[in-house]
Order: sequence, then C-alpha cells, then structure tokens
Amino acid sequence: MRLLARLPGVGEKTAMRFALHLITDAALARELGASLVELPARIGPCERCGNLAELSADGQVRCSICRDTRRDPTLLCVVAKIQDLLAIERSGAMRGRYFVLGKLLSPLDGIGPEELPLRSLVAIIRSEAVTEAIIATPPSVDGEATALYIARELSGLGVRTTRIASGIPHGGDLEFADQITLGRALEGRRRIGE
Amino acid sequence: MRLLARLPGVGEKTAMRFALHLITDAALARELGASLVELPARIGPCERCGNLAELSADGQVRCSICRDTRRDPTLLCVVAKIQDLLAIERSGAMRGRYFVLGKLLSPLDGIGPEELPLRSLVAIIRSEAVTEAIIATPPSVDGEATALYIARELSGLGVRTTRIASGIPHGGDLEFADQITLGRALEGRRRIGE
Repeated sequence: MRLLARLPGVGEKTAMRFALHLITDAALARELGASLVELPARIGPCERCGNLAELSADGQVRCSICRDTRRDPTLLCVVAKIQDLLAIERSGAMRGRYFVLGKLLSPLDGIGPEELPLRSLVAIIRSEAVTEAIIATPPSVDGEATALYIARELSGLGVRTTRIASGIPHGGDLEFADQITLGRALEGRRRIGE
Repeated sequence: MRLLARLPGVGEKTAMRFALHLITDAALARELGASLVELPARIGPCERCGNLAELSADGQVRCSICRDTRRDPTLLCVVAKIQDLLAIERSGAMRGRYFVLGKLLSPLDGIGPEELPLRSLVAIIRSEAVTEAIIATPPSVDGEATALYIARELSGLGVRTTRIASGIPHGGDLEFADQITLGRALEGRRRIGE
C-alpha cells in the first residue's frame, strides 16, 4: 500500500483500491511483481540519447531509434523529456535522431547549467555527422532559457542550431490565444505563396 | 423575450431571466433600449478595413486604427474576424493596420472565393504603401485554405505575403500537442543563437 502510493498520481485511496484488487487476484500480483523485478534489467536509458532502450543480451544499450540506420544522421532533435520524444515520433515529422536532456534550466527549482548533460550532447555533435541541432524544448520560460543556453554552447561547433516554431496550434483560435503566443505567431511569420 | 432569445448564446431560459430583470428595472430597460436604438447610427464597419468604427458627425467612417497616422502603413494584417483583430491589438505585436475578411473559405458551408472581399483588399494594397501582407487567418483547415488563396491572389502585386507562425503555444507542452501542430512546429523551425 505504502509503495503503491509512491506511484505518480496515486494517492492513498487509489493505492488502497489497487492493493485490495491485488489481494483478490493473486495471479496478477505474482505476474506484475515478477515483471517489475525484471524491469531494471530489461529497460534502461539509451547510453547515446537517453531514450528508453531495451537492454540486449550483448550489453548493447542503444535505443531502437539510435540503432535505426535509416534515420537521417545529420538531424539531432534535443528534447526535454522522453514523453516529448515519443510525441514527436508519433507526429512522424522527425527523420533524424534525438537527445533527451532529462531536465530544463530552472532557477526557481535550483537547476543550473551544470546539471544539463551538455558534455554528452557536444560529444555526439563532435563525433557524429550532425549538421543541424533542433532545440525542441517547450516554449515555456524554462524551455526558452534552456534553448538559448544550449544554442550559445553549441555555437562554434559548426552546426546550425534551430528552434521549433511557437505560435497558434492547429485548429486554434486567434481570439482565444494568449498575448505572448500571438506575439510569437506574428514575429515568426514566414513567406507563403509564390 | 422572443427577441432576447435571438442574442448569441441566449436560450429561452436566459431570455426569460433577462426579461424578468428588465421588467423589474424599468430604468435599465429604457436606457438599454434607447442606446440599442441609437447603436446602428453610432457604430458601423470601417469602410477601409471592416473593423468597428464610431461614425463621426462629418460622415467619416474610418476606425480609430485606420485614422491613426502613427501606424506603420507598410504592414497590413489580414484577419478573419473583428475578434481576432482585437486579440492581436491586445498583444501589442502589430504596428501596422488591418483588413477584416469577415469570413473564411469554407466548401462545407458553401462559402467560395467570390464571397471574400478580395477586391477591397487588392484596392488597398494597390493604392496604399503596403509592402507586406500578413495573413493572420487561424491555422484551421478553412483558415489555411483562405491564406493560400489570398497569397495566390496577391502574387504579382509586388507585396511580400507572409503567414503567422503555427506551433506550440507559449507555455504549451510538446507531450500534449497534437501531431499536426508538432509537425508544423518542426517544419517552421528557425535559427537561434549567433
């Protein structure tokens, strides 16, 4: 019960419901327990990009995207967290590979530049064929600060550093957009036609 | 009651509540009634841009933005509706003037190109010092179709036609963004740093 309540979004009541269910379904309890025990030995962070990777028997710790040779090696998309990587993958718009920061600069939470895995990022850019680093951190205060910091750190490495567009989302209404988003949508305008 | 229920978003019950209130507050009923009678003679569409304009005694029917000489005459922002114009004004990001289409192309609703006020738009661009037309229709299916149609119609007029950015809104989370928005955010990426 106490352990179940440590799952994200699970409070005491939900933990109790889970516990009571697991008591009545002993088979589920055993199966779930066994796979949880195995989990850390089977899934871990990809040693290159930080994505989830299935650990293979030969000790290779690369995720399926990093191993996929059909991926464009010149494009590297830098994201804040694995969930964002998965969302971009679902969109099908990214042909290249990724790099998961795991955190964003956040003065309020005491997260400074030294906590970002910048050294690994620079090592990848130096050793691989990357020509463009797309900073896809969220367009929040922390996300923008992180993007600018990374752009500065990457300058001089000979890669083109770009930032994903911020603006009105698909199907969104200008009338109900916040002022910063409207400002960015205008500022980030691009030529059409011709 | 019947007339009150014709106001947008007002159903029978709300209309009844309004009516009962107006019966008990005769002063409000008289004042509201008198100003509604006057309304069409005081406020009308700006003859240049379609924004709301206070009709002045000398018969001038230009809105305050079109009359404002401090506005940048080279920038023209094309919007779908007055509410969008007001939203962009609140953002403070637009130094130029506007043009309100009043509607968007919509095959499903039977709104074709001939219903857009393209002739007025072209006349403004031809006769004024406009160098850039910013198409700020919403990034919806109808809004995009309208933007492309206008861009094509304006090509050859010697103005630069641009489209506002579509992407992740300020403070938005990539994880919860829809796939089209993520695709646009990546496609519309811009250089940062340096």
